[in-house]
Amino acid sequence: MTSAKPSPAGRADPTGLPVLALRDRLASGALSAAEAAEAFLARCEAVEPEVRAFAFLDPEQIRVQARALDAHRKAGRPIGPLHGVPVAVKDIVDTADMPTENGTEADKGRRPERDAVIVARLRRAGALVFGKTVTTELAYFSPGPTRNPHDPERTPGGSSSGSAAAVAAGMVPLAIGTQTAGSVIRPAAFCGIVGLKPSHGLIPRSGVLTQCPELDTIGTFARDLAGAALLAEVLQGHDAGDADTRPVADLPLLAAATSMPPLKPLFAFVKGPTWNEASDDTVAAFEELLAVLGAAPGDRADAEAGLCDEVPLPREFDEGIAAQLRLQHVGMARHYARYLERHASLMSPILKQAIETGRGIGALDYLSARDWQAVLRAGADRIFERYDAILTPAAPGEAPRDLTVTGKPAFNSLWTLLGLPAVTLPLLTGGQGLPMGIQLVGRKGHDERLLRTAAWLQRHLEDDSNAGGDARRQEATPA
Amino acid sequence: MTSAKPSPAGRADPTGLPVLALRDRLASGALSAAEAAEAFLARCEAVEPEVRAFAFLDPEQIRVQARALDAHRKAGRPIGPLHGVPVAVKDIVDTADMPTENGTEADKGRRPERDAVIVARLRRAGALVFGKTVTTELAYFSPGPTRNPHDPERTPGGSSSGSAAAVAAGMVPLAIGTQTAGSVIRPAAFCGIVGLKPSHGLIPRSGVLTQCPELDTIGTFARDLAGAALLAEVLQGHDAGDADTRPVADLPLLAAATSMPPLKPLFAFVKGPTWNEASDDTVAAFEELLAVLGAAPGDRADAEAGLCDEVPLPREFDEGIAAQLRLQHVGMARHYARYLERHASLMSPILKQAIETGRGIGALDYLSARDWQAVLRAGADRIFERYDAILTPAAPGEAPRDLTVTGKPAFNSLWTLLGLPAVTLPLLTGGQGLPMGIQLVGRKGHDERLLRTAAWLQRHLEDDSNAGGDARRQEATPA
Repeated sequence: MTSAKPSPAGRADPTGLPVLALRDRLASGALSAAEAAEAFLARCEAVEPEVRAFAFLDPEQIRVQARALDAHRKAGRPIGPLHGVPVAVKDIVDTADMPTENGTEADKGRRPERDAVIVARLRRAGALVFGKTVTTELAYFSPGPTRNPHDPERTPGGSSSGSAAAVAAGMVPLAIGTQTAGSVIRPAAFCGIVGLKPSHGLIPRSGVLTQCPELDTIGTFARDLAGAALLAEVLQGHDAGDADTRPVADLPLLAAATSMPPLKPLFAFVKGPTWNEASDDTVAAFEELLAVLGAAPGDRADAEAGLCDEVPLPREFDEGIAAQLRLQHVGMARHYARYLERHASLMSPILKQAIETGRGIGALDYLSARDWQAVLRAGADRIFERYDAILTPAAPGEAPRDLTVTGKPAFNSLWTLLGLPAVTLPLLTGGQGLPMGIQLVGRKGHDERLLRTAAWLQRHLEDDSNAGGDARRQEATPA
Repeated sequence: MTSAKPSPAGRADPTGLPVLALRDRLASGALSAAEAAEAFLARCEAVEPEVRAFAFLDPEQIRVQARALDAHRKAGRPIGPLHGVPVAVKDIVDTADMPTENGTEADKGRRPERDAVIVARLRRAGALVFGKTVTTELAYFSPGPTRNPHDPERTPGGSSSGSAAAVAAGMVPLAIGTQTAGSVIRPAAFCGIVGLKPSHGLIPRSGVLTQCPELDTIGTFARDLAGAALLAEVLQGHDAGDADTRPVADLPLLAAATSMPPLKPLFAFVKGPTWNEASDDTVAAFEELLAVLGAAPGDRADAEAGLCDEVPLPREFDEGIAAQLRLQHVGMARHYARYLERHASLMSPILKQAIETGRGIGALDYLSARDWQAVLRAGADRIFERYDAILTPAAPGEAPRDLTVTGKPAFNSLWTLLGLPAVTLPLLTGGQGLPMGIQLVGRKGHDERLLRTAAWLQRHLEDDSNAGGDARRQEATPA
C-alpha cells in the first residue's frame, strides 16, 4: 500500500483532509480516533439537519468505537489500513449493532443477527463504522429524505443517496453503496464526489439485501480517488457465501489509484445507446473534454498526438439496456416477493409495478438477457484490447431539481449489466453550477488498470486547467 | 490404467470378449484392428436388419480406419488407450466424416464441419469410430426404428436407442449416448447392458446437439462395467467450449471400476418420488436384492452386518421431478426454436408441444427450478456422508412391448437434475425374462467412488448367486 505525503494542513479540520492524509494521521497517532470522530460529528451537527443523509447515527456509539480504537493503538497492537477512519454504510448492508431497515417501513426496527461480510471487513481494517445511510425503498427508485448537499431542492441521486450525500457534505470521508443499475455512479456524480463500482464479483454481498444477484455490485464513495480505491481494496476478496466472488489474489487498487501508467493511456469516448438522454450541458462538456484530449494517435509513443477516439458501439449494445432492466425486474420479483406477500400496503406503486413486471417475464426472455450479458461483455473486451478505458458521461446531466425522483441510470445500466468496473470523477460543472461526473469504464477484473487510468486523467486535466485550459470542471466542494 | 488379465478365450470371436480383453488383444497386436472390424461387421450383417441400431454405417469407411490403425501400430508409433476398439456414436454428436442428422428429417443429409470434442478424443485414443446410432427425434421422445435386441417387439428405450441396442446386440463393444432425463440409464437397462451417466460436467458437450445445458450429460454404454468406465475415462476432461466442465485432474475411472473398495460399501436404498411407477417385477426384485444385502450395520467393520438401509427422501425431493421437466422444456424452447421456425411440418406433435410448454414457463419458475437443483443436491450430499451409493431401479420395469414409445425416465430425471453420476448394472431379470437394471447413484464429482462401489456390488451378487443366492438376475446375453 502506498502512503500519501503528510498533509500540509497541519492541525487542519480533519473533515477537510484528503483521505490518505487523514488515514496517515490516524495511523501515526497525530490525530486520535476520538478527535476525528468529534470533528466529523460536529460536521454532522451542522449539516445533517438539512442534508438528511443518515438513517441511523448514534454519536455515543461512535464515541465508544473511537475510544476502543484509540486504546487499541495506544496498546501498541497492530492496526488496520483504515484505523479510525469513519465509514458510513448504506442501510441495505447488515450491521449487528445498528438497525438495517432497507429503506422500507416493512423492515422498521429490523436488527440483523450479524454483520455483512463487508462490515466485518471494515471492522477488521480498523474502520469506525459511523452510521447507516439513507437508501431509496429497497434500493429501487422511491426516494428517501436525503437532499443534495449542493442544493437542497435537488435529488442526491439514488439508490445510495445517503452515502453519496454524507461524503459530499463532509460528514464522513468514506461510504459504502451498491449498484444494480446506476446507484453508485449516478449519486456520486450528482453530489460531486468520486464513486467507484468495481467489477461484478470483486466485493462480496453476503449480508446485503439482494435485489438481483446477476447485477448487484458493492461500490465505494470518497471525496478523492485514492479514498475510493482504498475502501474497495479493503472490501474486496472471495467469500464462500457469494458464488460470484472468486478466490484470486487481491487487486492493488490503492497503489494503482496513486501511481501513473507507464504509457499515456488511450481513451475510447463512447456515446452508447442512450446518448439522446444527455443534457446540453453534458454534450458541451464532453465536446470540450475531447478537444483537450485530442484525437487518438496512430503511435502511442508520440507525445504530441491525441489520447481519445470516439468509438461507436455496435447496434447490438442497444439490447443491453433492455436486458439489464429485464434481469433487474426478474431479480426483484424473485427476491422481493416476501415483501409483497406480507407488506404490500407499505410498498410504493413503482416498486410493486416492477415486481409485477418481473413476474410476467418469461424464462426464454430471462435467458436471452443472460446471453446478451455474455455476448456484449465479449464485445466490450475488444474495445479494451486497444483502449485503456471507456470515457462516457456518469449521468444525463446535473442532478434534477426534484426530490420525488432520483434521476435516470441511463449511462450506467449497460456497464452494470456487463459487470465492468466503473468510476466517476467530479471534474465537470453544469450550466446551473452543479457538479457532473466523467465516467471511466474498464475491463472486467482489471479494476487496477481502470484506477491508474483515472488517476492519470485527473492529473492531466488538472495540469491542463492550471495551464489555462478551458474545459469546465470543478473541485469537489460540498456545500 | 489397469490392464485386465489376458482373455482365456484364445482366438475366440472378438465380439464376445470382455471390453478390456478386446482392448488388450488389439493393443498387443494379437488381434488386428482389421480383424476386429470384420468380426463386428459380420455381427452387424447378421443382426442389424432386425435391430436397426444404426443411422449411418459404412463398412468401407470402417475398413479404411482399421487399416490406418493397424499401419500406425505396426510402425511402432505410440497407441492410445482405445486402439482399434470400435465405438458407436449417437447421431446427435457431430462427426466430420459421417452425417449427423439428430434424429430429425429437418437435418437430413447434414454434414458437420468438424468433430465434436468427444469424437476428437475418441480418435486421439485410437478408437475406431464405427458409425452413428439411431436417436429419437432431437433426443426427445419420438422413437426411431431401433428394436430391442432381446425382443424385436419391444422398445430399446431412448433417446440413445441405437447406442444401447448396438452394444446389447454385440455390434460394437462400446457406444456413446446422452442423457437429459433418462436417455442413457433407461435404454441400457432395457437392453441389458451397462450404462454410465457420469457427473454433469465431467465430459464436454461441444459439438453435441444442445437440448438443455443445465441437464445434458454425455454417457457411455458397454457390455461390462470396465468398458463403460474406460470409455468415460477417455472422454472426460475440461473443454473451454463447455462452461460446465472444469480444469481439474482426470478421474481414474477404469482403475476404480476394476478395483475393490477398502471397506465393504454401504448402500442407501431409495424409493424416491416415483416409486408408484415401479412394476411388480421391480418391487419383487428389489425386495430380494435387499434381502441379500441385509440391513445396514451400526458398525461397518462388522463383516456379518447388513450393507443396505432404506433411506426415505425428504418430501422436498418430489419437487425435483417437476423441476427437471421445467428445465428440459425451457431448454427445448430455447435451443430448438430454430427447428420450429423453419421445419415445423417435419416435427412430431409431442416435440412441438414440449417447445410450446417451454415457451410458456416464466423466469421465476425457471429460476425456482435452478434453486431446487442446488438445494436438492445439497440434500443428496448428506446421504453420501454415510452411504457410498444410492441403490434404486434404473427404470419402472422391463422394456415396454410397444415400439411407439421409449418408456419413462421416472427413475432417472431426479438424478439427472442433480447432476449426480449414475450407473446401471444388468443384474436383474423381469417376469417376461427381459433384463432389468440396478441403478447406483453417487455423489457429484465422485464418479470413481461410484464405479468402485458398483464393481463391488456386481462381484458380491455374482458370488452370492454362485453360492445359491436366490435374487433373480442374469448376465447380459444379447439375442
